[in-house]
Amino acid sequence: MKTASIVGAGLVGSLWAVYLTKAGYKVQLFERRPDIRKAEISAGKSINLALSTRGWKALDTVGVGDAVREIAIPMSGRIMHDLESNLTYQPYGKEGQAIYSVSRGGVNARMMDIAEATGQAEIFYNEKCVGTDLENGIVFLENSETGKKWEVKSDVVFASDGAFSAVRYNAMQKLDRFNYSQNYIEDGYREILLPANEDGSYKLDKNALHIWPRGRFMLIALPNEDGSFTCTLFMPFNGPNSFKTLTSKEAVDNFFQSTFPDFYTMMPNIADAWEDHPLSSLAIVRCYPWTHGKTALMGDAAHATVPFYGQGMNCGFEDCSVMWELMQKHNEDWPKVFEEYQQLRKPDGDGVQDLSLHNYYVMRDYVGDPKFLLQKKIEAHFSEKHPEKWLPLYSQVTFSHIRYSEAWKTGQKQDAIMKNVMAQFEDIENVWNSEAVENAILAELN
Amino acid sequence: MKTASIVGAGLVGSLWAVYLTKAGYKVQLFERRPDIRKAEISAGKSINLALSTRGWKALDTVGVGDAVREIAIPMSGRIMHDLESNLTYQPYGKEGQAIYSVSRGGVNARMMDIAEATGQAEIFYNEKCVGTDLENGIVFLENSETGKKWEVKSDVVFASDGAFSAVRYNAMQKLDRFNYSQNYIEDGYREILLPANEDGSYKLDKNALHIWPRGRFMLIALPNEDGSFTCTLFMPFNGPNSFKTLTSKEAVDNFFQSTFPDFYTMMPNIADAWEDHPLSSLAIVRCYPWTHGKTALMGDAAHATVPFYGQGMNCGFEDCSVMWELMQKHNEDWPKVFEEYQQLRKPDGDGVQDLSLHNYYVMRDYVGDPKFLLQKKIEAHFSEKHPEKWLPLYSQVTFSHIRYSEAWKTGQKQDAIMKNVMAQFEDIENVWNSEAVENAILAELN
Repeated sequence: MKTASIVGAGLVGSLWAVYLTKAGYKVQLFERRPDIRKAEISAGKSINLALSTRGWKALDTVGVGDAVREIAIPMSGRIMHDLESNLTYQPYGKEGQAIYSVSRGGVNARMMDIAEATGQAEIFYNEKCVGTDLENGIVFLENSETGKKWEVKSDVVFASDGAFSAVRYNAMQKLDRFNYSQNYIEDGYREILLPANEDGSYKLDKNALHIWPRGRFMLIALPNEDGSFTCTLFMPFNGPNSFKTLTSKEAVDNFFQSTFPDFYTMMPNIADAWEDHPLSSLAIVRCYPWTHGKTALMGDAAHATVPFYGQGMNCGFEDCSVMWELMQKHNEDWPKVFEEYQQLRKPDGDGVQDLSLHNYYVMRDYVGDPKFLLQKKIEAHFSEKHPEKWLPLYSQVTFSHIRYSEAWKTGQKQDAIMKNVMAQFEDIENVWNSEAVENAILAELN
Repeated sequence: MKTASIVGAGLVGSLWAVYLTKAGYKVQLFERRPDIRKAEISAGKSINLALSTRGWKALDTVGVGDAVREIAIPMSGRIMHDLESNLTYQPYGKEGQAIYSVSRGGVNARMMDIAEATGQAEIFYNEKCVGTDLENGIVFLENSETGKKWEVKSDVVFASDGAFSAVRYNAMQKLDRFNYSQNYIEDGYREILLPANEDGSYKLDKNALHIWPRGRFMLIALPNEDGSFTCTLFMPFNGPNSFKTLTSKEAVDNFFQSTFPDFYTMMPNIADAWEDHPLSSLAIVRCYPWTHGKTALMGDAAHATVPFYGQGMNCGFEDCSVMWELMQKHNEDWPKVFEEYQQLRKPDGDGVQDLSLHNYYVMRDYVGDPKFLLQKKIEAHFSEKHPEKWLPLYSQVTFSHIRYSEAWKTGQKQDAIMKNVMAQFEDIENVWNSEAVENAILAELN
């Protein structure tokens, strides 16, 4: 029987296990942590993520989509909260399009269940990968509970062990001519659980992603199934308005009261809840090659990104779709599959990172800017009339399968066109849906 | 007694040991390899390096300079060898200025001797650093001969263990928010030993650095004390005219005969000697912070660069000068010394890397271009008349103590000025030393 090892049974690893069982592999997954289905994980600790079109495709290809749909909450647009507690709504796409708030643990657990139910996948817990023989497909393991050391050899090895991948650190990084970078941005984040009302209802519109854009920093909120929201404050570690200035209860209280007044009204005990979750950092990890011998990196292990486009999980899932298509194309000739996988996919890993960094500026700043919202309205209007000529960047990334690298390039061109066109009309606010503006865009496109 | 540990007894580590003994520290050096003074190192394996003003200052500050002068060969300029075996000479600086060819092993051995002779420094060999407690100043060691594991705690720890620093890899890289990148360039290198004539004399002018610039690749030669030259071929790993195309004796023979005809005449057996030395890769390593707790990175461990400006060793030695000055300034208050060291020195680590990459283009291409040589001649002429207004980039880097970061900025400005001025005179070849050109440069400077 064909055998495969997967290091890391997180989102990408557990989905990829389902794929491999479908292709007839006996799959062994090695997970550093205990079984998340048995460990006690409080609602507040479970981070939620935004699932979109690329992710759904990867899930549906192996019939996992419906199990995830049961726990997914559609968010059809952004709701911006300004300093005066006014709300502005911006749809993400066309009527009926949405991104979906899901709990990381919930999705992970369902995929583990499905992988195990095939009878071909086995998950080993508390198993730390302490080394990898990339060329011979051998994973060296150490059980963190028993201290037992053992090794597993298989036909092919996948490292889906996250941004700080042990396989990448222990083996890939030691290869001659392996390019690698880990770059932390100046900002960190802290999660805050906004509980449900006493009757279990939501304190905010549940079918939207909420943003409090404040220029250099922002607060966001995504709905959970139990009526709560997981909120995240992103801001610099140092400087004015930074985590460094929020070190006393009084400072936290004052900050939220003056900066996020409507949020403060919903959660006046924010200062007490402030330290429920740790302050965490954010990094971009780039590397190449992604494969060596019998081993391939997937997901964050290959291209960890900052979370601002909600594409980290979707991009990791798309790695599975792409690898799957290449398995068919090359009839499981792994050297060929791996070579095309990394050459094809590396620009898209870079692309999703560029897009993610860019969207931080959009979310924390531009979405509060009437000019930006007008630009997006003109784009949506034009795109509706000329769908074959214009798909807005957000839709390319979120509601299409266009390569990330292409979306990033097209998005930059579109932005330049819109800036030019909008500068041509002094009264753009009034004529935004006029034929003149439409023609100006058409002219720029040619 | 004050104690210090140094991981890596290479060029920077052994020089820094001399500094620390001078400040009254008991110093322990831990070196992964055997004692280079006892191991058999063939002349061909010893790489030679170009020592220049920054390096000499660091050596002279602790009285090591004269011991190194005994084995240093001055090179006062570059000699370019073209396809027709014509030679062009370009002085590096003013009359009397030179860079010095020294053997890595020779310099290293002398500094080890001097450090040990103080009676305060001890070097331990075959000791692999397997971990570091950065905050408490503990180095964890494993002897590669006996397998014995032990640890050493000291007041302060310095990691001068090279581009692939164990301290950086085992400890620094695991710190939250540690930025790190290792980027390999597309080119590699292979060394070739050009032996002395039978009577021991040199086959080429010994007081110059020889370059065979060929656009996308180049061959260089530096003199050794024994009449031989260590030559290095730098070229891409892949593509046309790459190491990949030089895999048979016939290919090597043809390539040298047609590409480096005068070299081939001196060494017609090049094809037989081709594999005497391995094909090696070239990387730029960047990281930050450089210090944590009681530990600091120095030399290549902090800022490994490609070798094209001959500044890797000089920059590492300058780290010693800078750290030494800060030790005096802050009265050995190490947290203050370390903080200022990394803030001050990081831009210069980046600067020397930018300069080194840039100088690859200069050496392999521009030095064969009459326009470039004319530009340098005009700069030298102008600089002689207005030394307070213009110091050529090469002199800033090689014959001054101007910060690398400043030199890099000034050099870019100078280049833009020269391009502008030279474009203003159609017959620049004839009027290069005219008052009109001088005035044009003066005008651009204001």
